[in-house]
Amino acid sequence: MEGDPALRLRVFDLNCWAIRYLSKRRQERIRLIGDMLCQEDFDLVLLQEVWSEWDYSDLKVKLGGCYPFSHYFRSGVIGSGLCVFSRFPILDTLLYQYSLNGYPYMLQHGDWFCSKSVGSMGARQVLAWELASLLPCSHQLHAEYCRQKDAYLPHRLVQAWELAQFIRHTSKAADVVLLGGDLNMHPEDVGIRLLRGWTGLRDAFAEATHFEGCEDGCTFVPNNCFTDKSELLPFPLGIRIDYILYKAISNFMVKCEELKTTTGAAPGMDVPFSDHEAVMATLHIQRQRQAAGATLTTAEPVLADVVTEARTEVSVGLRAAQRQRYSSGRMALLALLLLLLQAVAALGALAGLDTGQPFPKLSFCLLAFLAIGILLLATGLHLFHTMEVKMLHSTEEQMQMVLWMLQERP
Amino acid sequence: MEGDPALRLRVFDLNCWAIRYLSKRRQERIRLIGDMLCQEDFDLVLLQEVWSEWDYSDLKVKLGGCYPFSHYFRSGVIGSGLCVFSRFPILDTLLYQYSLNGYPYMLQHGDWFCSKSVGSMGARQVLAWELASLLPCSHQLHAEYCRQKDAYLPHRLVQAWELAQFIRHTSKAADVVLLGGDLNMHPEDVGIRLLRGWTGLRDAFAEATHFEGCEDGCTFVPNNCFTDKSELLPFPLGIRIDYILYKAISNFMVKCEELKTTTGAAPGMDVPFSDHEAVMATLHIQRQRQAAGATLTTAEPVLADVVTEARTEVSVGLRAAQRQRYSSGRMALLALLLLLLQAVAALGALAGLDTGQPFPKLSFCLLAFLAIGILLLATGLHLFHTMEVKMLHSTEEQMQMVLWMLQERP
Repeated sequence: MEGDPALRLRVFDLNCWAIRYLSKRRQERIRLIGDMLCQEDFDLVLLQEVWSEWDYSDLKVKLGGCYPFSHYFRSGVIGSGLCVFSRFPILDTLLYQYSLNGYPYMLQHGDWFCSKSVGSMGARQVLAWELASLLPCSHQLHAEYCRQKDAYLPHRLVQAWELAQFIRHTSKAADVVLLGGDLNMHPEDVGIRLLRGWTGLRDAFAEATHFEGCEDGCTFVPNNCFTDKSELLPFPLGIRIDYILYKAISNFMVKCEELKTTTGAAPGMDVPFSDHEAVMATLHIQRQRQAAGATLTTAEPVLADVVTEARTEVSVGLRAAQRQRYSSGRMALLALLLLLLQAVAALGALAGLDTGQPFPKLSFCLLAFLAIGILLLATGLHLFHTMEVKMLHSTEEQMQMVLWMLQERP
Repeated sequence: MEGDPALRLRVFDLNCWAIRYLSKRRQERIRLIGDMLCQEDFDLVLLQEVWSEWDYSDLKVKLGGCYPFSHYFRSGVIGSGLCVFSRFPILDTLLYQYSLNGYPYMLQHGDWFCSKSVGSMGARQVLAWELASLLPCSHQLHAEYCRQKDAYLPHRLVQAWELAQFIRHTSKAADVVLLGGDLNMHPEDVGIRLLRGWTGLRDAFAEATHFEGCEDGCTFVPNNCFTDKSELLPFPLGIRIDYILYKAISNFMVKCEELKTTTGAAPGMDVPFSDHEAVMATLHIQRQRQAAGATLTTAEPVLADVVTEARTEVSVGLRAAQRQRYSSGRMALLALLLLLLQAVAALGALAGLDTGQPFPKLSFCLLAFLAIGILLLATGLHLFHTMEVKMLHSTEEQMQMVLWMLQERP
C-alpha cells in the first residue's frame, strides 16, 4: 500500500479585502486575482472578505474552466465573505456562525455587522482507485485593533474555541482536514495554540520543507501599499495572521512540501492582490498502511496549560461582560425611574396639584425624549450583554469540562 | 462477535413547556418531572423548553444521583431551552443555531426571540469491552400556528434542512445517532420526510416492536388539560410532533424494542408533566459482524422527490421574502423622500422663500417624526428580509446541488 499513488494538492488562501465602495482598486484586484488563479491552476482556492456576491459571480464566470466547482457561503445581512473554488466536486456544505463577534456599538470596527463564520465543505478526489474526503474550511476571526489592550480577545477566543469544536465534530470521518483563512492571530497567540492543540492541526508554514515568500511567512506586511504602516510599527517585518492548517485522519499521511506567500505586487503589476499576502501550500497526501489514529499535536499537559490560559482570558471577558450587563441594566432602570417621575409630575400638573414654578414645557419634553432614548439604548445593551455573558459562560464551562477530561485521562 | 453483550438504552424526551411567568404550574411540573426521572432511571434524558436556568439547576441538583452528567445549552438572550441529562459521561458538546426562525414583528408567536437550535453531544458508553459513541441531539423547530396557511413552512424547512446537514456533518464517525425533540411537524409532512430521507434516521414509533401510549403515538393531545382544544379541532386524536429518531452507523445495529408516551396526568397526580406528552424509547444496540454502511432509509428516487418538494416550498418562501424585501425597501425610500421634501420646505421657510399659507408647525413636526419612524422600521425590515432572502436562496441552492448529485449517481 506504501506504493499507492500520491496526491499533490495545491491550496491557495487569500483575504481579498473586497469591500464595495471602501476597498481601494477592488474591481481591478478581483480581476487580477481571477487572472492569476486561471494561470496557476491550484486545486483548491479559499477566499475571505469577498463581501459582494457580484465579485464572486465575476470570479465564478472567469474561473469556470479551471475550477468547475465553487460555493459562496451566504449568511447575515452583509454576508460571510467566504467562498471556495475547487477542481474537485463539492459534495456538501455547512456554515457555522460564531456566537460572539464584537460589539454593535463599535461602529468604527464593524466586525459585528459581518457574520463571521466558518464554512465547511466535503470534496471528493479520486486517488487512482481510492477516495479521500477533504474537509476544507475557509474562515475569519474577529480583527485585533490594539494588541496592547485587546478588548476583543475573549470574543476571539470564543471564536477559536467554537472553530476548534466545529472542526472536531465535523471532521471525525474525513481523511484529510484543511483549514485556510485569516485568523487575526499571531502564531504564538493563545487562540492559535488552543486551536492547534485541541484539533491537532499542523501549521503548513512550520512544517513546510521549502519556503519562499515574505520573511517569517508574514502575510500582513508594511511593504504592501494598502496596509496602514502605523499599525505595523511594533512589527517591522509584518505579522503572520493568514494560515493554512491541515491534518490527516484515519490512514492518510499529509506533508507540506512547499509553502509560498506573495510578496506585494506580482511582476508586471503595479498593485498587490489585497492588503494581505496570499498563502499557497503544496501538500503531499498519501495513503499509509497503518492508521495513524486521531492524535493531538500538543502533548496533553501542555494542552491543559493552553486551555487553562484561554479559560482565564475568557473569565476576564466574562467578568467585564457581567459588569457591562449590570451597568446597562442600572442605566435602563434609572431612565425608567426618571420617566415614571415625569409621568407623576405631568399627572400632578394635569390635576392642578403643582403650586410652585412649573418646569418649562420644552425642557420637560426634551428630558422625556432623552429618558426614552436612554431607556431603549440601555435595554438593548443589557440584552446584548446578557447574551454575551451566556456565551462566555458557556465557553468557560466547556473548557472546564475539557480540563477535567485531560486531567482524568490516565 | 454476534454474541457481543448488547446495550439496552432507555431514552426520555419531553418538551417541558417551562416558560417563567407564562407556563401554568411550572415549578410544580418541573418538580414532578424530576421525581419521575429519579424513579424511572433512564439512560438519557433530552428536554426542550427549559427556558429558565433556575429550573435546570433545580433539576440538576435533584438528578445528580441518577444522572451524574448533564449539559444546558446556553444561547441567545432567552436561551435555547435545551438540556440533556445522562448516565454516561458527556465528552463534548456543540450547539448549532438555525439561521432562520420566524419574524421579529410576529410578537404574538415569539419564536424569533428564542434561539431555536440543535444541541449535540458525544457520550461514551462502555459496552463490556467495546466503546460506542452516541450522538444525542435535542432540538426544537419553529412552531406551526396555522396548518391551512402556514406562513412559517419555508423557515421550518430551512431548519429541517440545516438540522439534517448538521447531523450528516457531525455524525460520520458516531456509532449510534439519536435525535429527540419537538419537531413541530406531523409524521407525513415534507420536513420530516426530508430530515429522515436525507439523514437515514429511523422513527422509533414506526419501528417499535411494542407500543404503549396515546393513540397513533400522538404527543399533543386534546385530553391534556394544558392544550388549547380549538387548535386541535381538525385532529380529534391529537398530533404527533415529538419524536425519537435513531440510526446506527459503522458496525452497530439498533432496534427499537418499545416506545411509550405518557397519557396525561400520571397515577396519583392531578397535573400532566407538560402540554406535550413525553416520548420514551427502549433501544437495543448491538455490535454486528458486518459494517452496515451509511445507507439512506428512503430510496433515492423517492428522496429526490422529497428534496424537489421541499425545494419548491423554499422557492415559494424565497419569492415571498423577495417581495417583502422589495416593499420594505420602497417604503424606506418613500419615507426618506418625504423627509428630504420636508427638509427642503423647512430650509425654504428659513430662507423666507414661502409666500403662501405656512404648513402648521405641529403637524409638520409630527409628520417628520412619523417619517423618521417609518424610515427606521422599514430599513430594519429591509435588512431582515435581505438576510431571509440570503438564507432561503442558500438552502435552495444546496438542495439543487443534492438533486444533481442524486440524479448523477448511477
